[in-house]
Amino acid sequence: MQDEPSTSGKLVAAAAELFGRKGYHATGLAEILAATGLPKGSLYHHFPDGKAGLAMAAADWTATALIRIIDDAFAAAPTYRAGATHYCHKLARLFDITAHDDACPISVLLFDGPENAAFRAHAETVFQRLIEAVAAHARRFGMSDTVAREQAETLLITVEGGWTLARARQKSDVLRSLPMRLFPAPG
Amino acid sequence: MQDEPSTSGKLVAAAAELFGRKGYHATGLAEILAATGLPKGSLYHHFPDGKAGLAMAAADWTATALIRIIDDAFAAAPTYRAGATHYCHKLARLFDITAHDDACPISVLLFDGPENAAFRAHAETVFQRLIEAVAAHARRFGMSDTVAREQAETLLITVEGGWTLARARQKSDVLRSLPMRLFPAPG
Repeated sequence: MQDEPSTSGKLVAAAAELFGRKGYHATGLAEILAATGLPKGSLYHHFPDGKAGLAMAAADWTATALIRIIDDAFAAAPTYRAGATHYCHKLARLFDITAHDDACPISVLLFDGPENAAFRAHAETVFQRLIEAVAAHARRFGMSDTVAREQAETLLITVEGGWTLARARQKSDVLRSLPMRLFPAPG
Repeated sequence: MQDEPSTSGKLVAAAAELFGRKGYHATGLAEILAATGLPKGSLYHHFPDGKAGLAMAAADWTATALIRIIDDAFAAAPTYRAGATHYCHKLARLFDITAHDDACPISVLLFDGPENAAFRAHAETVFQRLIEAVAAHARRFGMSDTVAREQAETLLITVEGGWTLARARQKSDVLRSLPMRLFPAPG
């Protein structure tokens, strides 16, 4: 049985979904409240900074969801390469399910937020969490710290660029082609 | 001696610069006119669709500028690998010169425009122009059509994702590290 989401959890999930679909600047607090059915007071109780505070929490929420995909992809994989390949295929399915016009969830959480230094710094921390999640799997397969980090960065760079091209073409094929680009040699 | 830019050329250059820096939706026609010193009538004379028409032209303008960088990078290169490496280094310098908060010029021209099917279709065409520009150099170095196209796509995917990570970190280093990721084997 899953726990009923908390009030702040409901607000963050609705904000993350709306920021991802419509963009941070185009989303009003009234829409977030309407999506949750919660009163305005509860939003300011949990997020005294309003939309800017919600943006920070939504970035964390999105990163946690993306890390769950990473961990699922690598969990049963016999090699790093197999895990990275599962990850790309899972993202292709995510692309097919979500509206094709959505920006990459990574770049949404990184850039489409309040124009302030605190959010920028937070965005970098969030990106590092994703890199670290992949690097942890790479180390588990025997890579050194340096190599694991390089591999993790390369995977996330490729996924980010691949999502962009998939979006331009309105087709997820390019996401499925990423493993072939990342690991061109047979075996 | 360079030709004086045409009225429409001035409008497009100013629009491309403002869309790139502030975003399409946050840029008003009044700002574009103010940047050029031109009257409103001349904008509607050249772009009867107003901002939406300017977005199409600005995407083409940006693509042409990016293709010039690609051609410069590959012009004197002895190998495809050397050309791709020059291209990444040129982009790192571009990142250092422009404001670090700017989105990748490729993704700006692809996604931050009017929400209509015509612009989306145009964006895909523009992306294909960039891929074709790189693929033409790859073929010049003896690659088959298929391989040239794959290599070109991989380079643009990596550059797009690399720019995103550079922006998260506010540092261009990752753009300089792309050749090492694209061509890991020595030689």
